[in-house]
Amino acid sequence: MDRPISFEVTHTSKDCKARCGLIHTPHGTVETPMFMPVGTQATVKFLSTEDLHDINAGFILANTYHLWVRPGEETMRLAGGVHKFMNWDGPVLTDSGGYQVFSLKDTRKIEEEGVHFKNHLDGSRMFMSPEDSIRIQEAIGADIAMSFDECIPYPSSYEYCKDSTDRTIRWAERGLKAHKRKDQALFGIVQGSEFADLREYCAKALVAMDFDGYAIGGTSVGESKETHYKMLDDTIKFLPEDKPRYEMGIGAINDIFETVERGVDMFDCVLPTRIARHGTLMTSQGRINIKKAVYQNDFTPLDPNCDCYTCKNHTKAYLNHLFRNNEGLGSRLMSIHNLRFLIKLAEDIRQAIKEDRFLEFKEHVLSTYGFDKRGF
Amino acid sequence: MDRPISFEVTHTSKDCKARCGLIHTPHGTVETPMFMPVGTQATVKFLSTEDLHDINAGFILANTYHLWVRPGEETMRLAGGVHKFMNWDGPVLTDSGGYQVFSLKDTRKIEEEGVHFKNHLDGSRMFMSPEDSIRIQEAIGADIAMSFDECIPYPSSYEYCKDSTDRTIRWAERGLKAHKRKDQALFGIVQGSEFADLREYCAKALVAMDFDGYAIGGTSVGESKETHYKMLDDTIKFLPEDKPRYEMGIGAINDIFETVERGVDMFDCVLPTRIARHGTLMTSQGRINIKKAVYQNDFTPLDPNCDCYTCKNHTKAYLNHLFRNNEGLGSRLMSIHNLRFLIKLAEDIRQAIKEDRFLEFKEHVLSTYGFDKRGF
Repeated sequence: MDRPISFEVTHTSKDCKARCGLIHTPHGTVETPMFMPVGTQATVKFLSTEDLHDINAGFILANTYHLWVRPGEETMRLAGGVHKFMNWDGPVLTDSGGYQVFSLKDTRKIEEEGVHFKNHLDGSRMFMSPEDSIRIQEAIGADIAMSFDECIPYPSSYEYCKDSTDRTIRWAERGLKAHKRKDQALFGIVQGSEFADLREYCAKALVAMDFDGYAIGGTSVGESKETHYKMLDDTIKFLPEDKPRYEMGIGAINDIFETVERGVDMFDCVLPTRIARHGTLMTSQGRINIKKAVYQNDFTPLDPNCDCYTCKNHTKAYLNHLFRNNEGLGSRLMSIHNLRFLIKLAEDIRQAIKEDRFLEFKEHVLSTYGFDKRGF
Repeated sequence: MDRPISFEVTHTSKDCKARCGLIHTPHGTVETPMFMPVGTQATVKFLSTEDLHDINAGFILANTYHLWVRPGEETMRLAGGVHKFMNWDGPVLTDSGGYQVFSLKDTRKIEEEGVHFKNHLDGSRMFMSPEDSIRIQEAIGADIAMSFDECIPYPSSYEYCKDSTDRTIRWAERGLKAHKRKDQALFGIVQGSEFADLREYCAKALVAMDFDGYAIGGTSVGESKETHYKMLDDTIKFLPEDKPRYEMGIGAINDIFETVERGVDMFDCVLPTRIARHGTLMTSQGRINIKKAVYQNDFTPLDPNCDCYTCKNHTKAYLNHLFRNNEGLGSRLMSIHNLRFLIKLAEDIRQAIKEDRFLEFKEHVLSTYGFDKRGF
């Protein structure tokens, strides 16, 4: 069967499970491992699509829940999908909406059929089923859509995790059945929380359904680093080699290395743009807080090793000035830098994998970039 | 004497006093009449300098008072001036700081020596003399600096206007004496409020000092359109033909035409960027309020006759969506459009002048664009 996207592993590092690959999509071919910028509302905050091309962005992630609430499913359909809506000709991935729906803790009620909740804008009652999620994602028209799942809160009892994982599997089956677009891939999401047997159980059930790719869900939800990495190990060994693997919410540098080392191909995070807007920059010399007074008269670039528009054209003094005056240009320039920093890091990681020196490169970066405990 | 800038009138429209010219500056040659975007804090809000080149911006206006307060005179000097600070290689003009200082009505006290006031950020006491204004403007290093003057409140008694105009003339003399930079032009500002004899008196006194150009000050401060245009007429007839004329605060379309018709060469206004950030767009089909529900599913460009990045790449539906979600990209895209609209209008005005059909073009624009009473 012809798939909407195809994936090929081009090289696996001799020193670990890190691998390089190519994802061929209806909107071009991208290389993995890859960091995907988040464009919640069909806009990566402050960046134009020209800016996205300039930083060599591959996939952009858009949020189904947010686009459903505003501008709405009908507008997305009339627009001809998210690519035309935002004028982005590269590939797009949408989440299922589940994460946002489940995070509205106080108002949501889970049933077998789907989830009742109140939307965050006006509090009106809404309902999302696996079929709704697929229908909305088809209207958005991303290159990759995701199964509707429950991201299990951590920690939860074994019984809760078992029941929830079972329901996620049933929802995955319903979503797969509802999904009709031939030009859109659908990924399954493996849940199971911290329990190895549930991870195995869920992974095997989803793999049997033959999705176009698999996400490792329910991580980075408050668990320790050790538990997080164990969740990955407990899941990935049951995933096929020839399908892309995606972990959501990974943007801290140490997490990126740990994730890629275990064989993950795709990851995304709001972290780089969110911290950029608050004046925190990731650089090859470590973390910079641009609002510090020491930068007021520092006429050097943020990062001498960076090739982004910001570093090629502006100084720390100017960024300090823009930040202190709350100027929108500052948010844009700093977001461009942090995104390019992670996209360039992924490029360097791919090069290291191709040269079978991933672990050496990981050690080099983590020991010289001087990250804090949060990993950036 | 070699002047830092030179000006030549290349054509005067046969049907009125509107004229085309060239201003040669240390940062390139620009054509007049010209609309100048305002970059208060050494940034035209939300636009990069690349964006400014794309819209064919000539001069950018920066505010001396704001740059003095933050980042401060010393930082501007250490940066090597505003061009390097913001990485803009086109020409820059600075105001004198007087307008902002005088607008701090509750705290300012005018003396012969200068003005005492409290700054708007932390309320600390400050003082600005004509010499201070020049020294700060030399540190900022714009291509054109302005004399320190009092923008007379409207209406004021004849006696107040006479005293203030006399002081403005004395301050202009002190500023001229203090000004040393050979690569920076200095303009005098004609005051005199609504009184024809004071306008004549001030214009003749300043022209006798031989400034590099002249601004018509004290307009658009609450007077009627008729009084405004009379102030222009009462001033311009005493200004030399071979020096550029600048009117501050002009950005509404009818004002632009009236101003250019009377022989003004340069004008600036925060209006296009300020209204853009509030979702109001100037188009060849009239004014558009992008937040209206009718645009949610309107997949056409803002203005089919516009060549800006926004109109070439995005739809009203997308701009409506960005505006409703308070996305910074929306502010940028809409600011780009409004600025390009006025810069293109100035380009078309120049073409009309060259073809001796300025009045016909004015009539065409004012009758077809459908502007409201505010003139946009």
